Amino acid sequence: MTAKRDTSRDGFRNKLETLALTKFKPIWDFIQSHPGLAKKVNKTLINNAIYKIPTRPYPFSTMSPYTSWESLNDRTYSGLHLPPVDWQPLTDKNYIGINLTPADKFEKNLPPVEDLAVLYSKTGETKYSPKSTLIFPYFVQWFTDSFLRTDRQNHRRNSSNHQIDLCNVYGLNSKITHLLRSHQGGKLKSQMINGEEYPPFYYDENGQPKAEFTGIPLVLTDKDHPKSYDFPLEKKRTLFAMGVELERANVQIGYVMLNILALREHNRVCNLLAKNYPNWDDERLFQTARNIVMAEFLKIVLEDYINHITPYHFQFFTDPLAFTNEKWYRTNWMSVEFTLVYRWHSMLPDTLIYDGQKIPMPDSMWNNDMIINKGLGAIFEESCSQPAAQLSFFNTPDFLLPTEIASIRLGREAKLRSYNDYRELCKYPRVTDFDQISSDEKVQKELKRLYGHVDNIELYVGLYAEDLRPNSALPPLVGRLIGIDAFSQAMTNPLLAENVFNPETFSPVGWEEIQNTKTLSQVVHRNIPQTNKTYRVSFYREDGRPV
Amino acid sequence: MTAKRDTSRDGFRNKLETLALTKFKPIWDFIQSHPGLAKKVNKTLINNAIYKIPTRPYPFSTMSPYTSWESLNDRTYSGLHLPPVDWQPLTDKNYIGINLTPADKFEKNLPPVEDLAVLYSKTGETKYSPKSTLIFPYFVQWFTDSFLRTDRQNHRRNSSNHQIDLCNVYGLNSKITHLLRSHQGGKLKSQMINGEEYPPFYYDENGQPKAEFTGIPLVLTDKDHPKSYDFPLEKKRTLFAMGVELERANVQIGYVMLNILALREHNRVCNLLAKNYPNWDDERLFQTARNIVMAEFLKIVLEDYINHITPYHFQFFTDPLAFTNEKWYRTNWMSVEFTLVYRWHSMLPDTLIYDGQKIPMPDSMWNNDMIINKGLGAIFEESCSQPAAQLSFFNTPDFLLPTEIASIRLGREAKLRSYNDYRELCKYPRVTDFDQISSDEKVQKELKRLYGHVDNIELYVGLYAEDLRPNSALPPLVGRLIGIDAFSQAMTNPLLAENVFNPETFSPVGWEEIQNTKTLSQVVHRNIPQTNKTYRVSFYREDGRPV
Repeated sequence: MTAKRDTSRDGFRNKLETLALTKFKPIWDFIQSHPGLAKKVNKTLINNAIYKIPTRPYPFSTMSPYTSWESLNDRTYSGLHLPPVDWQPLTDKNYIGINLTPADKFEKNLPPVEDLAVLYSKTGETKYSPKSTLIFPYFVQWFTDSFLRTDRQNHRRNSSNHQIDLCNVYGLNSKITHLLRSHQGGKLKSQMINGEEYPPFYYDENGQPKAEFTGIPLVLTDKDHPKSYDFPLEKKRTLFAMGVELERANVQIGYVMLNILALREHNRVCNLLAKNYPNWDDERLFQTARNIVMAEFLKIVLEDYINHITPYHFQFFTDPLAFTNEKWYRTNWMSVEFTLVYRWHSMLPDTLIYDGQKIPMPDSMWNNDMIINKGLGAIFEESCSQPAAQLSFFNTPDFLLPTEIASIRLGREAKLRSYNDYRELCKYPRVTDFDQISSDEKVQKELKRLYGHVDNIELYVGLYAEDLRPNSALPPLVGRLIGIDAFSQAMTNPLLAENVFNPETFSPVGWEEIQNTKTLSQVVHRNIPQTNKTYRVSFYREDGRPV
Repeated sequence: MTAKRDTSRDGFRNKLETLALTKFKPIWDFIQSHPGLAKKVNKTLINNAIYKIPTRPYPFSTMSPYTSWESLNDRTYSGLHLPPVDWQPLTDKNYIGINLTPADKFEKNLPPVEDLAVLYSKTGETKYSPKSTLIFPYFVQWFTDSFLRTDRQNHRRNSSNHQIDLCNVYGLNSKITHLLRSHQGGKLKSQMINGEEYPPFYYDENGQPKAEFTGIPLVLTDKDHPKSYDFPLEKKRTLFAMGVELERANVQIGYVMLNILALREHNRVCNLLAKNYPNWDDERLFQTARNIVMAEFLKIVLEDYINHITPYHFQFFTDPLAFTNEKWYRTNWMSVEFTLVYRWHSMLPDTLIYDGQKIPMPDSMWNNDMIINKGLGAIFEESCSQPAAQLSFFNTPDFLLPTEIASIRLGREAKLRSYNDYRELCKYPRVTDFDQISSDEKVQKELKRLYGHVDNIELYVGLYAEDLRPNSALPPLVGRLIGIDAFSQAMTNPLLAENVFNPETFSPVGWEEIQNTKTLSQVVHRNIPQTNKTYRVSFYREDGRPV
């Protein structure tokens, strides 16, 4: 990659914003050390991120190219930030002032989906992230999978609860929740192996599903991978019963590590509550522990995780009551765009280090023995001691290439507008040439060959074609779209609402636990056998934290 | 009734507000005649009505006496404006500053439910409303029944969509919607009788349900009236297939008149759209007509109906985009309190005038022949030419006494706080004596006999024990609670949202229809055979409109 990107279409205000947020460290340090001022800046920056585009409710969903009562209410269809390509306006030709690329200039000129694999396929060595450890993509997959749940049979639909609700831990619906609970002391069912706590196994010793878990689906039926749940007995043996489909819940060690962690934290909190509130029944213990654990993980998302993503000096913090009056505080609705900006397939390397040995990444799928044999603390540490791959073109491992292609197909089935239309929506000037997107001449050349004109580039391709911002884990348009949907749908969590986010809801003891939780590392260290060992648990590579 | 109410606990600010809004007519006329000023006042008054109490999301529902993830999300349990009686606070003893009457002082002292029938039972002649015609309670029942849908088996639950969605016309869910559509030209199924349009009959000539309507339930199962749907063949013959349970949809002629009207308006709008947008298919015609008719009826609710309720000089108007930034603009959640303030059973007289003859009110139930034989225009006029009864104690017709008792039972099952607690929530000083509630000595005496102390009065009883405000259809606390829930849950209708409430959504032709709709009378006159006759259609009695 040679540094030759034409920055003339980055937008003056955008450049100024980045400059202000990434330079002047002494000023940011000053702000951060004055709590009242920091609160104001925290609020201003988060609002600034969200108000980049119009707020919910959206007039359009993937249901139809016009607005109907059903399209305004049926959230099994996904939200859209821009009208779909087949929208035929009755009044203004533009939309909220944006001159959208007409369908006959965009949709008709798209290259065949299969031809686009070349943009993702590796041509040389894996590029590694200078900033992030492997736990970063692990964490992202785990927590976004709980609310970005595209229907694999019909890409326009979803099975999301539209909340960051840790459904992978607590169950996608109340029937599954019921199956996962021990109904004693508020706890989730669990088992002890080698002195550590794990979810129960889904299958019995003969590879038959246990009757107690009837109701947990095996798989989100997938037209591309209809057989992905047909595991050999050896793999079946250690698959855990968790809150979502068996196949998904056990998909990769990263996902399972975080689920195990949340389960342990839940049961730990139950013990704590039972000790302090001896009169509480199982139901109250369960419900209150669940509230506490959800709030803890929301804090980790809003602090540990978000601050890793941004290249800013300012460190965001959880101050949800600051947003009670905001116009963006509306009913959540996960959008197609949000699912696309969270597809960081290229961050998974082809191989990972396990027990000091390089092994193929696919070996870490549906393979819980890797965790059980090593123990949770040690495998967290090992995951945090090796880099993630870099989010970029020509860097996706082979086994995920079909997923990249499926993502492009999803964008087309959802009739998404062009990359340039989304740039304009998000207050980036439309690009006029390929060298304004990427500094990588190979990216420029391939995009030109495939699309001919920048107006033809589709959103999913354009998003990841962009150069990463310096010190950031993400390219600019991905970062901006994530900021909008993530902040505006995390802060609206009802647990963070006025008159709810208080010690009365969580109990004074639980409130204290929430206050004392800011990082993933803290939760890991609460939930491993007491050996006095401190494990390295961080999204940052040892040399990757900005100075 | 003698005018001897002690007004010392009405509250200074409340008195001032009432004074300002009901006197100084020249000032209000001046405001109303200056559109910019009127818009500001409209917004201020509506916000003032809503901000009387904390806004959604509520920390409590009828699910449990503490806050859980399920209680925050499962809207099949009804909302609560105050914590339930069995709430046991962990932190502050009071709630948002209110010193709630403790359960052992309130719940334990309630009189047996059956003893309370005496408060509703007539002791003499029916009292009539000086202000409202019979169409007023008819309209109220019809439009509130679509979103206040208490489960009759479990009073803490509901089957509401939590929107004013005209589900009685369009179907409670998409399966029922499908059954009601003709799937041609966007229209709802209908039939012509005597040259007028009606919904189709649910039963065939032999009294068997038509196969095409399988999926429309017969009845909301009711433990108190389990057999209420077992109609004789003579009644079955003219029961219409509509959007909700057969029993409910045909319950009384007022309900059916309004449903017929909405159906005709829908099919009329379809014709208009088809003429202007000849390329539209059935689906688009249906969906757009539905949007238009819903917006028209929202306008009638927000203008014709609300302005009839209030005793104010200022006439509210529909300006939904004024509220885009309000803190109360949150996901709807119908509350138990809202269902109770809309139980105006005493407004139905024992008898009604039909074809000039006095007939018992129960004869108008499940009796659609009354409408078919007379025609829609004439029966609207006759309903608007006779008074409603007055909303007050000792004025409920015998056949509705069980419903009053069931309402009190509902309040107890939902563990509602006391009348005085709700007064304090709504910024009315707590009453300290019975003569502060009602000027009627008989009301004072009976309340004292039954409850002993004003702190023991339960919400449902206290609400309707209060004197009506002069010129108002409603007593003060009822009016205040309705203002809160009605405004804050009507204005949040997604059709009225920014970027949705515009000609693009409704089509330019539909937008024009919405602009031209302000009164029920207009819609009636668009949908009756062209005879050049103008019928009297008004919520006001001829001599009841304030000067």
